[in-house]
Amino acid sequence: MIQRLIERLGRETVPINAALDRAMESLPSPVRPVARHILEAGGKRLRPFLTVLSARALDYRDEDIYVLGVSLEMLHAATLLHDDVLDNASLRRGRATAHTLMDVPTVILAGDALLAEANALVASFGDPRLTACFSEATSRTAAGEIQEMAARGRTDLAREAYDEIVRGKTAWLLRASCEMGGLRAGGDGDALDALALYGENLGMAFQYVDDALDLAPEDVTGKPTGGDLREGKLTHPLRLFRESLDDGRRKEFDRMFSGGGSSEEVLDMAAGIRDAGFDRMVRQEADAYLEKARRAVLRLPDGPDRDMLLLVTDHVRNRRN
Amino acid sequence: MIQRLIERLGRETVPINAALDRAMESLPSPVRPVARHILEAGGKRLRPFLTVLSARALDYRDEDIYVLGVSLEMLHAATLLHDDVLDNASLRRGRATAHTLMDVPTVILAGDALLAEANALVASFGDPRLTACFSEATSRTAAGEIQEMAARGRTDLAREAYDEIVRGKTAWLLRASCEMGGLRAGGDGDALDALALYGENLGMAFQYVDDALDLAPEDVTGKPTGGDLREGKLTHPLRLFRESLDDGRRKEFDRMFSGGGSSEEVLDMAAGIRDAGFDRMVRQEADAYLEKARRAVLRLPDGPDRDMLLLVTDHVRNRRN
Repeated sequence: MIQRLIERLGRETVPINAALDRAMESLPSPVRPVARHILEAGGKRLRPFLTVLSARALDYRDEDIYVLGVSLEMLHAATLLHDDVLDNASLRRGRATAHTLMDVPTVILAGDALLAEANALVASFGDPRLTACFSEATSRTAAGEIQEMAARGRTDLAREAYDEIVRGKTAWLLRASCEMGGLRAGGDGDALDALALYGENLGMAFQYVDDALDLAPEDVTGKPTGGDLREGKLTHPLRLFRESLDDGRRKEFDRMFSGGGSSEEVLDMAAGIRDAGFDRMVRQEADAYLEKARRAVLRLPDGPDRDMLLLVTDHVRNRRN
Repeated sequence: MIQRLIERLGRETVPINAALDRAMESLPSPVRPVARHILEAGGKRLRPFLTVLSARALDYRDEDIYVLGVSLEMLHAATLLHDDVLDNASLRRGRATAHTLMDVPTVILAGDALLAEANALVASFGDPRLTACFSEATSRTAAGEIQEMAARGRTDLAREAYDEIVRGKTAWLLRASCEMGGLRAGGDGDALDALALYGENLGMAFQYVDDALDLAPEDVTGKPTGGDLREGKLTHPLRLFRESLDDGRRKEFDRMFSGGGSSEEVLDMAAGIRDAGFDRMVRQEADAYLEKARRAVLRLPDGPDRDMLLLVTDHVRNRRN
């Protein structure tokens, strides 16, 4: 089953990447290397893939859906560039991040230019509903990142507040990816609602799995283990773990949470969280979101594209990076 | 004459600021103080003012023009926030810049959020031509800033290349401010063309005057003197001055141009450039652009709003900060 998804993704990636290459040519030449660095780092093109599948599931056959999908990948890349600068992250998908190779101002401006070009791409469709959906996704994503930044280092962050951060920084863009495909396909209210619900729940699950993977060994994910712990992000597994500790060990956690742990200590603590099963618990919560996503997608017309949207939920569940 | 402009600007600033305050409420709360800091630093609301005047000159009477105008002020503020971080500037309009008071990540994200909200505001008008115009302005402005960054420290920058930077980083946004007012007013092709030409030439002149003012004493402008010299931006007065130098003094210039001059040396050199009259020469070039702007605006219907657009050219010429 999942093999069919991988085949389809492989097939769709060709026109998606071709549309992306064309879009890159509109960028000012000094920032093109930065844009290429982030976009060629082996992203899975999940967002454009969702746009394409969502439109196809509503029987939209035009090739311009690849162009629309690319706008979402560009917005995603723009946020990654700014994020990596803000987090001062050194690795992304196992490769050095752009701002460690190029100067920070160029990376920030490359993010700005990617977002501007993405907006121009969406505008070129001449449909105010697409523009409204895309600009809301941009706002929500920025708001999520801002709330996350403001919450950093806070051990008293409520579970609900963290979920709102996740909804903004991750889920909304996946929601918009699906919704925009449906809008372009001329879907009716119920289909659009189903796609939005599917995308948002998929996105929540995506981030929950990400939070679990953050605790996995680096040789599995290609990313340093325990980044969230080091950076003071109170993800669900970290909150669950912290709540399980006695006062003494909680103090130790809080020291690492405020950036005070050595690499070895962070690795040890991440292993401890895994051993206690908190990453698995969070994966189970992700499953509940995925179930909601599946129920939403079943409201769409039966067919091979709908099947693919269902398979994407398995992919999100099982992904390792 | 100019007194009438000041009165009108004062009157229009009230609904512009009210619309701006409402737009601020949509921003995520952690970045609102940053947005307020940049927006309340005494900006003259030139861009929304142009949008309002352009629409009124085509007899558009609706109050929603203030909301549209505010989107341009927000885009402008977003670029200022990112610019000040990138330039590591310490003062803007005589006040400390945001990132010297608040952390850099919050300032960058505040810029992102302002831009996202501005996009959402424009999208709310449901007119694809407004969206296209706004997203092109965003792209052009980012491209101009990127080209400027790439050109920094280069003493071989051609005059034409610098003009392209100015057209992007400054003129295009003024052009879009006028054009969007005309679009909202339902102006015909010739009126839109006239407004675009007016705004673009006004913007070129605006930056030329800015480049001349950069050499003026700090007590006149509220900004440190010679910032462009220190930061390696080869503005027209700096290029003209450099070309006038013998080899020995040119070496001295290049040392300051690559950031090697003391504050006193930079002040002395700025005074030298003024004494040689290069700032006045650039103001004369600005006059030529303003004349083009006036000729364009005279193609619009006669009336008090068109007169105001004409008076704005005098304001740009005579401004001291």
